[in-house]
Amino acid sequence: MLVKDLNEKELLARFVPLLPQATSVVVGNGDDSAVLHIGGDTTVSTDMLVENRHFRCDWSTGFDVGYRAAQQNIADALAMGATPVSLVVGLGLPPTTEVTWVEDLARGFAQACQPWEVGVDGGDLVSASEITIGVTVIGDLQGRKPLRRDNALPGQKVIFTGNLGHAAAGYELLKHGYTRTDSDEYLASLIDDFLRPKPPIGAVMSAVNAHTLCAGIDVSDGLVKDIGRVAQSSRVWINLDGAQLNKLLGRLGRAAGRLGTDRRLWALAGGEDHGFVATIDSATVIPDGFSVIGQVMGPDEYGRVTLDQLPLDPDQIGWDHFRSA
Amino acid sequence: MLVKDLNEKELLARFVPLLPQATSVVVGNGDDSAVLHIGGDTTVSTDMLVENRHFRCDWSTGFDVGYRAAQQNIADALAMGATPVSLVVGLGLPPTTEVTWVEDLARGFAQACQPWEVGVDGGDLVSASEITIGVTVIGDLQGRKPLRRDNALPGQKVIFTGNLGHAAAGYELLKHGYTRTDSDEYLASLIDDFLRPKPPIGAVMSAVNAHTLCAGIDVSDGLVKDIGRVAQSSRVWINLDGAQLNKLLGRLGRAAGRLGTDRRLWALAGGEDHGFVATIDSATVIPDGFSVIGQVMGPDEYGRVTLDQLPLDPDQIGWDHFRSA
Repeated sequence: MLVKDLNEKELLARFVPLLPQATSVVVGNGDDSAVLHIGGDTTVSTDMLVENRHFRCDWSTGFDVGYRAAQQNIADALAMGATPVSLVVGLGLPPTTEVTWVEDLARGFAQACQPWEVGVDGGDLVSASEITIGVTVIGDLQGRKPLRRDNALPGQKVIFTGNLGHAAAGYELLKHGYTRTDSDEYLASLIDDFLRPKPPIGAVMSAVNAHTLCAGIDVSDGLVKDIGRVAQSSRVWINLDGAQLNKLLGRLGRAAGRLGTDRRLWALAGGEDHGFVATIDSATVIPDGFSVIGQVMGPDEYGRVTLDQLPLDPDQIGWDHFRSA
Repeated sequence: MLVKDLNEKELLARFVPLLPQATSVVVGNGDDSAVLHIGGDTTVSTDMLVENRHFRCDWSTGFDVGYRAAQQNIADALAMGATPVSLVVGLGLPPTTEVTWVEDLARGFAQACQPWEVGVDGGDLVSASEITIGVTVIGDLQGRKPLRRDNALPGQKVIFTGNLGHAAAGYELLKHGYTRTDSDEYLASLIDDFLRPKPPIGAVMSAVNAHTLCAGIDVSDGLVKDIGRVAQSSRVWINLDGAQLNKLLGRLGRAAGRLGTDRRLWALAGGEDHGFVATIDSATVIPDGFSVIGQVMGPDEYGRVTLDQLPLDPDQIGWDHFRSA
């Protein structure tokens, strides 16, 4: 059955019941807006995923796409220091989309949201030439200060949690014909990490609740590019420690060997893992799940990023939506 | 200059400064999320607009599209009884889009937002095959109860404010080769009402602040279809008064004559004006700018809608995103 075989009401009747509801919802799906009871300042962030740009239907199932769309938005709210509460989803579908694909998408959203009690509480369903998914996440700061990217201070440690370069490696493996069902479980797991990214939600949530982080950012466009944003907006020089970074790359070795790639490029330029970078005062205990990967060296008007003191150009390392890197 | 001639940072540097910021913004554009200080429960609603489905670039300028996208979202927050506060915008652009079109889009957003002190406080910019705009609006109930659609009660009056059928007429005129610069100012104004819808924001805001409305809905898919949603979710029978509706159709006469159309069809099926329907207790004074168009006749399990007691099928009158009406 295709989307065009149903009217909007019928399609919604199959899609909406698969979705979880936020615990703080006052009015859920089906009115002009959802209504949420939020305890502190509200955070809001939006992402758009477009078929053949952010996902390919021959690589990803509907479930994968929904899972990823939810995860990356949940990561954005957390990276602001907020507790993710609710998503709304704008869905553009070609009329020839299989209805089972759409149901599978809802199940992917649900699976990513449920552990964190995040709801999918509203949306819009429209016709489009390519599958397009606009997700907005609402977060609740619950009285905490926002975790800004412009708050890094000289002397602080730069810490990281999450997968580093897995999604980039998984993407390259898929391009070279490897699949998620590959018999080499290391390669298969990297592909899975690309198709269903696993942001370090639990580790970030604990650190946020412990109020120890100073600046923070979601790594969505690449480690160096996103750390560059912290450095530029905080007007500091950040140096990354190559030896520390190498320790995080263990799982990439075999894939890099197969493809003849330097695994450090995946780590420095890959963003789709939605890892998380923060700065903390040098005296603070490193939160569980985080590793030190560098240091804020001092004030710097240009916000330089270096690797073992070697200057990097953040604009040239990472993902640009209109140019290739 | 085309979008592909700029990198993302350069494009954002042209786009973002044209946008207003919410008055309650704590952290604006440029971090992982925007942060808003909201005084009551938070409302959230999202819409997606797709080129050649919701707008045509040979009919609409970038300004028109931005203006419309903002207006229809502001209307959604208001229709929930909330004060619209902030928008976030996901923007999918073909790399061959003119940069001036994108700047014009931002100016349209700004013009629609500024009278109501609504900000555009975050977004996402991605590459796509067709121009796709996902807008999410955050509203603040400021301690008020949400204005739900399932709250209509027998005996109440059904009231309306806004343009009725103008957008539908304007669309038909454009399809028949008329233009916004047509020398007949009546026809031109209908076309303008389609290209730049004018939801009755001031009238709804006053009525919401006066706490007199009982149920309410934004008319986005057609008067009968949206009133049908009120009737169905409230489990009541709503009768529309043809004579009262006719009084709202004065400006449609000339266009209907030119095109040989029954203007009542535009009024009953047209939605893109983003008018507003509410119910109020029969003893309540009609709020400024509203007209009585019908009555809640009694409880009804099926949520029937009638016109002068003649049964209408809401599912067959109005806009369905995957089938034509």
